[in-house]
Amino acid sequence: MKRNQVDKKQLIEVSNGGLLERRAFIKSGAMLLATVAAPPISQIAVANDLSSLPEHMKTPGIPSIEYGQPSIYEKEVQRKGVNFFQSGIFTGALTPLDKTKGIITPNGLHFSIHHNGIPDISPEDHQIMIHGMVDRPLKWNLSTLLNYPMISRIQFLECSGNSAANAVSDTPVLGSCTSIHGQVSCSEWTGVPLKFLLDEAGIKPNAQWIMCEGADGGSHVRNVPLQKMYDDAILAFYQNGERLRPDQGYPVRLFLPGFEGNMSVKWIHRMEVVDSPSQSKDEQSLYAEFTKEGKLHQFTFFMDVKSVITSPSGEQLLPENGIYEIAGLAWSGRGMVKRVEVSADGGKTWADATLEGPVMNKSFTRFTIPWKWNGHNTTLLSRATDELGHIQPTRSEWKAQYTNFTFNHYNAINAWHVSSTGKVSNVYV
Amino acid sequence: MKRNQVDKKQLIEVSNGGLLERRAFIKSGAMLLATVAAPPISQIAVANDLSSLPEHMKTPGIPSIEYGQPSIYEKEVQRKGVNFFQSGIFTGALTPLDKTKGIITPNGLHFSIHHNGIPDISPEDHQIMIHGMVDRPLKWNLSTLLNYPMISRIQFLECSGNSAANAVSDTPVLGSCTSIHGQVSCSEWTGVPLKFLLDEAGIKPNAQWIMCEGADGGSHVRNVPLQKMYDDAILAFYQNGERLRPDQGYPVRLFLPGFEGNMSVKWIHRMEVVDSPSQSKDEQSLYAEFTKEGKLHQFTFFMDVKSVITSPSGEQLLPENGIYEIAGLAWSGRGMVKRVEVSADGGKTWADATLEGPVMNKSFTRFTIPWKWNGHNTTLLSRATDELGHIQPTRSEWKAQYTNFTFNHYNAINAWHVSSTGKVSNVYV
Repeated sequence: MKRNQVDKKQLIEVSNGGLLERRAFIKSGAMLLATVAAPPISQIAVANDLSSLPEHMKTPGIPSIEYGQPSIYEKEVQRKGVNFFQSGIFTGALTPLDKTKGIITPNGLHFSIHHNGIPDISPEDHQIMIHGMVDRPLKWNLSTLLNYPMISRIQFLECSGNSAANAVSDTPVLGSCTSIHGQVSCSEWTGVPLKFLLDEAGIKPNAQWIMCEGADGGSHVRNVPLQKMYDDAILAFYQNGERLRPDQGYPVRLFLPGFEGNMSVKWIHRMEVVDSPSQSKDEQSLYAEFTKEGKLHQFTFFMDVKSVITSPSGEQLLPENGIYEIAGLAWSGRGMVKRVEVSADGGKTWADATLEGPVMNKSFTRFTIPWKWNGHNTTLLSRATDELGHIQPTRSEWKAQYTNFTFNHYNAINAWHVSSTGKVSNVYV
Repeated sequence: MKRNQVDKKQLIEVSNGGLLERRAFIKSGAMLLATVAAPPISQIAVANDLSSLPEHMKTPGIPSIEYGQPSIYEKEVQRKGVNFFQSGIFTGALTPLDKTKGIITPNGLHFSIHHNGIPDISPEDHQIMIHGMVDRPLKWNLSTLLNYPMISRIQFLECSGNSAANAVSDTPVLGSCTSIHGQVSCSEWTGVPLKFLLDEAGIKPNAQWIMCEGADGGSHVRNVPLQKMYDDAILAFYQNGERLRPDQGYPVRLFLPGFEGNMSVKWIHRMEVVDSPSQSKDEQSLYAEFTKEGKLHQFTFFMDVKSVITSPSGEQLLPENGIYEIAGLAWSGRGMVKRVEVSADGGKTWADATLEGPVMNKSFTRFTIPWKWNGHNTTLLSRATDELGHIQPTRSEWKAQYTNFTFNHYNAINAWHVSSTGKVSNVYV
């Protein structure tokens, strides 16, 4: 069946710009086109070619190995921007959002940022200490903590500086979805609720904050409100079923659902209960927003509702006009994603995308909507709303709050321009 | 706080044998004991030892790598039983259920069974063909299929021969939870719904089955009812966000939620639509159950409701009497897990375990219940019920149906004996 055999009457538009009702896929699955560089190859009628078996069907294959690895044919699916800060100390790696599917990020591809590199910490020697305004200062060996009851949650983690290029660059940077937005990932995190440890130490009445220190070379320090520690904070030992990877804080990290990534202190070893935050070097400047009025917004914990279209996205090429699936990810640090709208005409009209399940609290939510591209210049946008009713601002609304060089917590509506040649590129609307 | 400071009155038993109400953990988190060999280490009051920093806090660490790997300190967390069938061809690897947490199995640790080893298939050369009782025989290159709309689901996969040792051995085998029950895992699978392809090919009225053939050296073949293909079957390309690993069927496998693992044909390349099953070599004998009445049960697709306690479990050692968390996994090929009961007195009395969320259709469900072990001999059991009301049979109920050498689809209640020395071992009840 060729593309031009589609019954066009079956494809009902739900907005201007060619967004289609969900059933379009079922009616026209066969005619979907690529959102990648290679043009689709037509289906070929079957000849009687069962005799010409490939070599791998004539010989036994190789056995399993103890710890499985990706196919050699997927070598290019890697984290990008490794050491993108051009420093041996402040390093990182970006999740390839444009090459992954679903909501789980595999551990090998989780984004990672570290200010002083990845420390080599033997779990035998590592201890967790709680002191300060407590009845009983305590220290635990990890072997003890690993026996505490644990909980598991599938939740996203996002760097407060994710998408910073769109915040600070006056002209839209050229780049892929990965290079611009790849500092966000989603995993199943398993660990010990902090409240167990705090109750054991006994928190004094006037305590309000906990200063959390990592055991890396930079002694990364963030102050966390005591209430968050009781609400849903965990000491995370496992990610997607197995122990944390070194660059995720092995042997143990703090995990604060919905808060900016750097607060989920990796390689954590010390928690000091205090009545006011210690004003660490990081929270005084790097992780703060400067307002237009000359004020400094510190302790802006929540990663607010946000979304990004992963396909089509920057640096991809639509080979020809036709039907595509627009797909993307949405998340909110304040709860569940309630709605994602997509525009295919630069924001003039919008249609509701389908939220693919499971939709979970502070987790990635995958959204999709069919789209018929007519081959003209246009711009694709996504706009997410969370269960609190918070909705993504426009870029100009976001920028109106802060100085020009402020880049943290950028959650404005993202846009991809599609040129008449099919080229997809980052753009501001 | 020492263990003997617990207010024993706070620990309310919910069955005989020491099963406790859920709040016991919150009340007594600090006193939980190990379910591993090493005894717990007491908490130590904090001395003024902040000056003696470890080396990894005085020096910068190493940068990230493109594809992350587990910590060198977790080398022993591997798949077990690699090549456990003692053959270069019929090989496999078992998920370490006793060393993983949560419900997601990381891709490197997913179980794998293959009858003729893992073939090396270049995605460039691989094609999917649908022929037989269709209006239009079709063949797709993978680059075309990868553009079709995909769906994602977090679902378990279990070998029909999982736990076979408990089915066929007259005396309980010695072994770990992994070695006995490790042929089950759970991932987020992403792929193209089969119905898109079938509708495109056009299924003829009398068609009832689809013969599915893998492109491995053994041409693994299973026949699948057409209805299943329309219900929820996918051609899976992604597992936990990234492309399938080679031993999971790279570049593409069939995935049939809830059905025995071998039917989710790996390395699939051919689907022949037929009116009756082709009786492949595998389904004639290996994947069939022999009844006491001398009948052969073929096409017993569903993996029925099942559960296993992963902690404490075989080959673990309870260091001393005290409070433990009993934790485990439950699943059902027919839908959601509705209930898991645990017994700590060999099956005389039972208490409801807590189902940790998310509880999803045909997915792993994690269950937990606190337990106070008094140091005497006892036996721990778990018994799951699914949303259809199906409940795990006892071993003797299961065995009553089949000949002694039948081993597929063993879903009887599993039991672990705890000796007064704390040793945990496989046992029949």
